[in-house]
Amino acid sequence: MTTSTSFRPVIAIHGGAGTITRASITPAQQQAYREALRDVLHGAQQKLAAGAPAEEVAVEAVRLLEECPLFNAGRGAVFTADATHEMDACVMRGRDLACGSLAGVSTVRNPVRAALALMAAGGPVFMIGEAAEQFAAKEGCEMVARDWFSTEQRLAQLRTVQAAALASGREQVALDHTAQSQTPAAPLDERKKMGTVGAVVLDVHGHLAAATSTGGLTNKKPGRVGDSPVVGAGTYAKNAVVAVSCTGVGEAFIRGSAAHTVAARVELLGESVAQATAEVIHRVLPPLGGDGGLIAVGADGEVSLCFNSEGMYRGQIGMDGEALVAIYANDALAPA
Amino acid sequence: MTTSTSFRPVIAIHGGAGTITRASITPAQQQAYREALRDVLHGAQQKLAAGAPAEEVAVEAVRLLEECPLFNAGRGAVFTADATHEMDACVMRGRDLACGSLAGVSTVRNPVRAALALMAAGGPVFMIGEAAEQFAAKEGCEMVARDWFSTEQRLAQLRTVQAAALASGREQVALDHTAQSQTPAAPLDERKKMGTVGAVVLDVHGHLAAATSTGGLTNKKPGRVGDSPVVGAGTYAKNAVVAVSCTGVGEAFIRGSAAHTVAARVELLGESVAQATAEVIHRVLPPLGGDGGLIAVGADGEVSLCFNSEGMYRGQIGMDGEALVAIYANDALAPA
Repeated sequence: MTTSTSFRPVIAIHGGAGTITRASITPAQQQAYREALRDVLHGAQQKLAAGAPAEEVAVEAVRLLEECPLFNAGRGAVFTADATHEMDACVMRGRDLACGSLAGVSTVRNPVRAALALMAAGGPVFMIGEAAEQFAAKEGCEMVARDWFSTEQRLAQLRTVQAAALASGREQVALDHTAQSQTPAAPLDERKKMGTVGAVVLDVHGHLAAATSTGGLTNKKPGRVGDSPVVGAGTYAKNAVVAVSCTGVGEAFIRGSAAHTVAARVELLGESVAQATAEVIHRVLPPLGGDGGLIAVGADGEVSLCFNSEGMYRGQIGMDGEALVAIYANDALAPA
Repeated sequence: MTTSTSFRPVIAIHGGAGTITRASITPAQQQAYREALRDVLHGAQQKLAAGAPAEEVAVEAVRLLEECPLFNAGRGAVFTADATHEMDACVMRGRDLACGSLAGVSTVRNPVRAALALMAAGGPVFMIGEAAEQFAAKEGCEMVARDWFSTEQRLAQLRTVQAAALASGREQVALDHTAQSQTPAAPLDERKKMGTVGAVVLDVHGHLAAATSTGGLTNKKPGRVGDSPVVGAGTYAKNAVVAVSCTGVGEAFIRGSAAHTVAARVELLGESVAQATAEVIHRVLPPLGGDGGLIAVGADGEVSLCFNSEGMYRGQIGMDGEALVAIYANDALAPA
């Protein structure tokens, strides 16, 4: 235990949770994910060590995750049922509860940077669709063509899910993490993965921040928004309390006010970050169908990487610069 | 005090909070608002008395508020800076935390009914833009032309705000509740009103629900989403805890997770509904610029109509069918 005057600056990240088992991944694929997580942590840690504010560190970590096609955000985002991409992102600064959320953007290279620009602008905190894209462009965010986010693997996933839905006679579903068939082209069965990336940070000044970004769910209905951009559901940060970023079945995380419930338990009940996150992930969310996980960091640097699914891509790094990563449930954090 | 086995079914509604003073309203205008609130309460109370579930009663109250051009939701919604209408709505059912949220819809006659249809469909809980409208149409919600929501008074308000912004040299602002000039055509200085309507209900079965609907802010940026459709910010309901619907500066209510903070304080700290709502409205939100108010009802039927602005259109009705309404701060609830 540490006191409130003693804290350990730290970054924690996630790259999505879901049905990720050793049986479903080759050793080479596993290693590629571990190294990707490690590289993201190293990249963001440079900002942490240089004294950057928590929200900038969190956004840098998420930007690097967006840039990596292995993760379902930014480039490598999954396709909607209409074979389009719709991305959501959010950032929240614990110091003053400033936040910025975007939903349904298709042409912003790094949605999380547009969310940061929205937060910095000090006006609306939540913008959607084309208007959000116009805002991002005006703020100087890099804009790209709609197909920039597409990868062949993701398109193959969509076609597989759609074919399976057609064969089963069910309506094509937005969330199909129970689908059984494997996509040969995908390094993982990504249809079983709740695709979201996120970061939580306690910076050297003792400030907290959280950021989350998502490409949604393979074959989701266009226009569907999950928990990621919903402050208090998928993302939340409050100084002296906790910073939280979630990944999972977005509907359940919205219904359960997942991120804010963690914060409320820490703030109002005095629970530890470990206690509060376990309560939400293992007791609040499961009755709502809330498969998934979250990452959280408290005011003293206590980190929780907590999930009720079979795996969650995750990692953390402190001031010593040693990146620790893990994938499965029974998988101790270790260097990549 | 009542015990949990003794509860009084009740409906509470709001029609927006803001700078509403006796000096700014003629007696005739005041009376029109009081009677409108009364009629909405009477309309919804029929469903309450007939044993309808809380979410249906709340949606009916909000639908009636949407239909009334005096209030900023549905017909009579304010104009965006582009002279369009963009509406958001949300409903949440306390029994199972089911919810439905829509943002940025322009052709659904009653956005709150579309939110109910979304909740009932059991898939996505949050949809935006055209896709949300397509969903509503498919579900049989009544669709209307975009100009159906327009009224001459609202257009006059927009032109006045835009002219004032031009004259002042400031960029036209999304939220201009500090504007000084009066719109002669408007019965109230609606630019100073946080335009949202909402209802909270404890039904005869002891279940809670909340619903909120909004036309946004006069001259707001298109694409801006406020707190109304954000579960945990503008709307929240959980059985045995509380149902909450907010109205105010949406950005602050999102940053403060206003509705869920009320619920967390009731659930985790055991505060009364009066205590929890006062804490949020008078302590949590003001430092965030959170002018506005909320209505809440607890599991025993304890109602709080709480605001930090100069007035809030509000009312409540129980099983006895007596509608009580009020507008100003120093304005006791009374029959219209």
